[in-house]
Amino acid sequence: MFSTFTRTATKSRLPSLLRLQSTFKIPEKQMGVIFYKHGGPLEYKELPVPKPKANEILINVKYSGVCHTDLHAWKGDWPLPAKLPLVGGHEGAGVVVAKGSAVTNFELGDLAGIKWLNGSCMSCEYCENGDEPNCAKADLSGYTHDGSFQQYATADALQAAHISEGTDLAQVAPILCAGVTVYKALKTADLKAGQWVAISGAAGGLGSLAVQYAKAMGLRVLGIDGGDAKKELFRSVGGDVFIDFKNYSKNETEKMNEDIRKATNGMGPHGVINVSVSESAITQSTQYVRPTGKVVLVGMPSGAVCKSDVFNHVVKSIQIRGSYVGNRADTREALQFFSAGQVKSPIKIVGLSEIAKVYELMEQGKILGRYVVDNSY
Amino acid sequence: MFSTFTRTATKSRLPSLLRLQSTFKIPEKQMGVIFYKHGGPLEYKELPVPKPKANEILINVKYSGVCHTDLHAWKGDWPLPAKLPLVGGHEGAGVVVAKGSAVTNFELGDLAGIKWLNGSCMSCEYCENGDEPNCAKADLSGYTHDGSFQQYATADALQAAHISEGTDLAQVAPILCAGVTVYKALKTADLKAGQWVAISGAAGGLGSLAVQYAKAMGLRVLGIDGGDAKKELFRSVGGDVFIDFKNYSKNETEKMNEDIRKATNGMGPHGVINVSVSESAITQSTQYVRPTGKVVLVGMPSGAVCKSDVFNHVVKSIQIRGSYVGNRADTREALQFFSAGQVKSPIKIVGLSEIAKVYELMEQGKILGRYVVDNSY
Amino acid sequence: MFSTFTRTATKSRLPSLLRLQSTFKIPEKQMGVIFYKHGGPLEYKELPVPKPKANEILINVKYSGVCHTDLHAWKGDWPLPAKLPLVGGHEGAGVVVAKGSAVTNFELGDLAGIKWLNGSCMSCEYCENGDEPNCAKADLSGYTHDGSFQQYATADALQAAHISEGTDLAQVAPILCAGVTVYKALKTADLKAGQWVAISGAAGGLGSLAVQYAKAMGLRVLGIDGGDAKKELFRSVGGDVFIDFKNYSKNETEKMNEDIRKATNGMGPHGVINVSVSESAITQSTQYVRPTGKVVLVGMPSGAVCKSDVFNHVVKSIQIRGSYVGNRADTREALQFFSAGQVKSPIKIVGLSEIAKVYELMEQGKILGRYVVDNSY
Amino acid sequence: MFSTFTRTATKSRLPSLLRLQSTFKIPEKQMGVIFYKHGGPLEYKELPVPKPKANEILINVKYSGVCHTDLHAWKGDWPLPAKLPLVGGHEGAGVVVAKGSAVTNFELGDLAGIKWLNGSCMSCEYCENGDEPNCAKADLSGYTHDGSFQQYATADALQAAHISEGTDLAQVAPILCAGVTVYKALKTADLKAGQWVAISGAAGGLGSLAVQYAKAMGLRVLGIDGGDAKKELFRSVGGDVFIDFKNYSKNETEKMNEDIRKATNGMGPHGVINVSVSESAITQSTQYVRPTGKVVLVGMPSGAVCKSDVFNHVVKSIQIRGSYVGNRADTREALQFFSAGQVKSPIKIVGLSEIAKVYELMEQGKILGRYVVDNSY
Repeated sequence: MFSTFTRTATKSRLPSLLRLQSTFKIPEKQMGVIFYKHGGPLEYKELPVPKPKANEILINVKYSGVCHTDLHAWKGDWPLPAKLPLVGGHEGAGVVVAKGSAVTNFELGDLAGIKWLNGSCMSCEYCENGDEPNCAKADLSGYTHDGSFQQYATADALQAAHISEGTDLAQVAPILCAGVTVYKALKTADLKAGQWVAISGAAGGLGSLAVQYAKAMGLRVLGIDGGDAKKELFRSVGGDVFIDFKNYSKNETEKMNEDIRKATNGMGPHGVINVSVSESAITQSTQYVRPTGKVVLVGMPSGAVCKSDVFNHVVKSIQIRGSYVGNRADTREALQFFSAGQVKSPIKIVGLSEIAKVYELMEQGKILGRYVVDNSY
Repeated sequence: MFSTFTRTATKSRLPSLLRLQSTFKIPEKQMGVIFYKHGGPLEYKELPVPKPKANEILINVKYSGVCHTDLHAWKGDWPLPAKLPLVGGHEGAGVVVAKGSAVTNFELGDLAGIKWLNGSCMSCEYCENGDEPNCAKADLSGYTHDGSFQQYATADALQAAHISEGTDLAQVAPILCAGVTVYKALKTADLKAGQWVAISGAAGGLGSLAVQYAKAMGLRVLGIDGGDAKKELFRSVGGDVFIDFKNYSKNETEKMNEDIRKATNGMGPHGVINVSVSESAITQSTQYVRPTGKVVLVGMPSGAVCKSDVFNHVVKSIQIRGSYVGNRADTREALQFFSAGQVKSPIKIVGLSEIAKVYELMEQGKILGRYVVDNSY
Repeated sequence: MFSTFTRTATKSRLPSLLRLQSTFKIPEKQMGVIFYKHGGPLEYKELPVPKPKANEILINVKYSGVCHTDLHAWKGDWPLPAKLPLVGGHEGAGVVVAKGSAVTNFELGDLAGIKWLNGSCMSCEYCENGDEPNCAKADLSGYTHDGSFQQYATADALQAAHISEGTDLAQVAPILCAGVTVYKALKTADLKAGQWVAISGAAGGLGSLAVQYAKAMGLRVLGIDGGDAKKELFRSVGGDVFIDFKNYSKNETEKMNEDIRKATNGMGPHGVINVSVSESAITQSTQYVRPTGKVVLVGMPSGAVCKSDVFNHVVKSIQIRGSYVGNRADTREALQFFSAGQVKSPIKIVGLSEIAKVYELMEQGKILGRYVVDNSY
Repeated sequence: MFSTFTRTATKSRLPSLLRLQSTFKIPEKQMGVIFYKHGGPLEYKELPVPKPKANEILINVKYSGVCHTDLHAWKGDWPLPAKLPLVGGHEGAGVVVAKGSAVTNFELGDLAGIKWLNGSCMSCEYCENGDEPNCAKADLSGYTHDGSFQQYATADALQAAHISEGTDLAQVAPILCAGVTVYKALKTADLKAGQWVAISGAAGGLGSLAVQYAKAMGLRVLGIDGGDAKKELFRSVGGDVFIDFKNYSKNETEKMNEDIRKATNGMGPHGVINVSVSESAITQSTQYVRPTGKVVLVGMPSGAVCKSDVFNHVVKSIQIRGSYVGNRADTREALQFFSAGQVKSPIKIVGLSEIAKVYELMEQGKILGRYVVDNSY
């Protein structure tokens, strides 16, 4: 399954001329996918090419990953208002073709990436401390700012990702959000090499990236997911111990907790990364985590509440840490692991025009790995 | 109210001769309070004086604080089995009168304190990392090990607190648990001088100590409690801003959250210390805490569950950290702040023989400040 | 001495109308101090008013502190090339009167400060991690960018300091460099409230600020300096224990070290802030610092070398940490302590036109406290 | 060279019966190596078997590593007085055969290791914070306490290392000091997975272990040493980039620095571990380390002084951190990496009676890898 997704870089996906030719002209019109109301038609149509502001770059987006958040933006089911009409997408990889007068950190022809955090004020307490995603003025790609499901998109130059020359732009696309997000979650867990981390939802799109980042960080990885195919995928990306939740009935939670503890020196994992979207799995993770351990929340099941028994929480001195998305440093670091070949991103490529179908599969839970759209058709 | 509690040190409460005279003889019998079943009679009677093991010291306990945990131990309503019959008490201050053959860190005549953590294995992953309270073999004073409600009690020499010569033993007693616990909670919040901390339950026994420690650590303190008397007490121990929860009706939670944010730069406190025993107050603290802020759980209302909205938890990147009791370093540090006069402990002294009555008042919620028993009568 | 320096805020020094009137016109010419070669004449003359770039603000500088670094810039004796001709100054406080098209974090009429770090790339590994001062493209006020010794100066909007409405602009000026620098040094020492910090050079311009910040952070402060006047000044700003180096002969270094240890629990301070410009004092601090303690280097005596005995360094597990200047967060925090009244800045005000004389006094070591120039004459 | 050292575990080196038979009798006499004055004869002779104190275990030492520190203890050339007469050795691996009355963390028959830190007070500020090696009462194996160059040796049970059943006792011996020491140094450098660390002296006994630990921690490793054999060894243990100092003449230091920077993203390594015993190499590491980077001192060349240019130290905000030996947690963790097969220890085994010859080779600098003595002959 996994292998059919995995693709090696081919020349056709690399920008043929990284240094733009002087004759290059930015068109007035482009193709993109737009919707005018939540849940309304996803129209693939001609749109005007946006103009970068003084602090922005204009990116000719070649490929863009498709993320569950895009589905939420389209459906409008999150307690955070999105702009309308909206061009979605926040995992776009492409080439810088224009820049505003205040931009000094990108040259035309550089490879650049569009992330969830399109821009922030850079001047509040959060931005100053590297918590830009928590900025009250955070501008979000594909949510409050038109995103990467179009051939040309703008991004604040300070937040746009720097992608190394020669990188496969299709493969790198999911790293820009999914990869950075799980890497940030692992940093949030603040573990030392040699310690145990559990990944709840280990064989999903986020999970399989999390396993790889965790191994690159020197951690021992226990994965939790359901079924033999998942187990095999988990092993193929380097996981150490697999717990199949399908082997336990509903009232065998404590038996499962005990098996997790046994597999991790008898004390439970030092950290847990919750990328699963199951509310009960999140709550369960507060039970099997090692005393003084850290439970990290990443996935956001709609309306979910994490319930933690106070006595257990205090006496075991555990922590429940929310991890959102990466900042500039997290992004650079996550991309370095990718460039070093330590993290692979299994993808399936379809045309940008086919995105409605991808959303449909996503809603049906039929997607394995990550879809990436080719913005050229 | 507060002032009637506060007492200054008097010579009578100081050990008359800190260096024991060579003629001192440890008696065979002593007076103490014991119970034989949970909820059974608290008998003030003659008990044998315990013998210290090789690693233990024997302390002639002069004064002992009375804590809510003592009530839980007696009632047996915590999911952690206690020994029976049991002598309670874990805030005992006294003089070392004997020691085992392996003890090198105490001399006879030294002042010593009995803490909740009587001893631990010192050799597991938790003990090695300074998380002794999380040791699976933790031995607990007044719970799994006979405590300080007797005239002579034993303690593992490595965990027993070192108390400076000349310290008022009655005043220091509540520091040994209440003081150390709130100091540890503040350390767990991991705040920087100049930041805002909220103390939920700011004018109770733990709360008023927490306010003082927080000020000594350079923090700005917002206190939450109910009523004018509480407000006055909060001010008298140095608090900065008081929020009276009685000013808000049940459906004005968001209004109260907004007032808390306004009082703290518009963004909410960087940390919250939950010493209140209200489940809803705990959950509310996840709402008003500043993005990237840390909610610390300390109080353990019976059966309480902390409920955190996952979307809010992730997008605001907050953390919920359990804080149990202090380790050896926390204890030493908490005592130093007391010795430096930066923290005062308002107490009311009664005889050890009157302890049943103190439990009664405690159950009725009629106690303000901290009761300390004088073990001599 | 100190008291004659201290001034309270007077209305005349506050911008009369913080919100600029619409009729305000930025002039073409202004007065400033410029030099054309290192060590050459400091000319007070008419200069063109600079134009802000897209990312810059233009500040009407009211007051500017004078720092030893300004002297180094003028003399050109640091191994870091400065621009020529140069307008010095990097502690300027004033009002925003114009801004570039990309600026979103300042409004006209806001109070703003010019710091040593005028701007940085915001996109390298250092900038992303909050180490902007270490950016290879760091632009330095009064060094590589014309500074605050002129009535109108430009600053990158992201690095310019936000100063609260109502602040005394003369008093706040030295906080912008001296205050931020010592606050950063204390953060670099990474101490906990209740620990001991030694300030070597405790009664100088930087030292007396360091003492105040240290106290606000809950530290116990031992000051080292020479003479009774210094001792008195140290006490007046809240210091705890004073060591007068004049009481020790050249071969009594170990005696002095021993006295420092005795005053700090017998083990030496947990941290040392070296603001003294004595090379031997720096080396000595590696001897008296507590095992596992941290020696912080701040002052930069020309050509000085810190010499640390390797055996001592390893067996005592000490650290020698360089601390440069603050980043955006350090600046905001240092200003908050000032605004809260926890830090006072003793100053002497003279006209901008008199700056050559200030440099002269500085070279002769005749300055106590901090000189601030009034840019209006 | 390296390969001839490497040995696989053979049954003969494993304790034949890990669980001691009840018939086992501790003898009165044993063989060991003792010297009566510094530099005096190393006598292999019959010695009395020591008796464990209440807090001690008695270990039947099977194998013991030989370390440079043993040479210093014998010569008496360190500024730290050793006991006399002395049995050296502090890397002993064996079996627990007796224990004192206060010992609860070892059972007879357990495998145990003797480390440099034989015991500490466990009750001072250092011990409480996990800095036991810095305890003023630290008791040192083979220095202030008779060590592992005898068949039966005592150790404080809290500091003795726990070795997993089935471990090759000869191979694990050097991990007990050399392994733990470099692992601690890497922890002291406080680096993140993916960052660059330089190991100065990368192919020596400590260096080759450091490279392996660094790789297990997810770091990128640049090694500095001299000659092709060293380069090959460095590669064989997994190092990434090798810099041969023999390729640079004495006045090409800056060229070498530049090559190191080029190999590490142009900015220099984030951390440097100095296990080389060259004073000039130590000083040079303060030049090529990345701004904000950390130089760790481990090796202690006799009389060496680390010289750091203050201007460079401050402006680049670097840190020089001393790292001594590991605590209990460091030891456990370092042994876990060994048990997991992530770190291999190349050794050469000779009889305990031949130790004088090993010292001779050591003094002549003729030793590659690590010598281990078999205490049975």
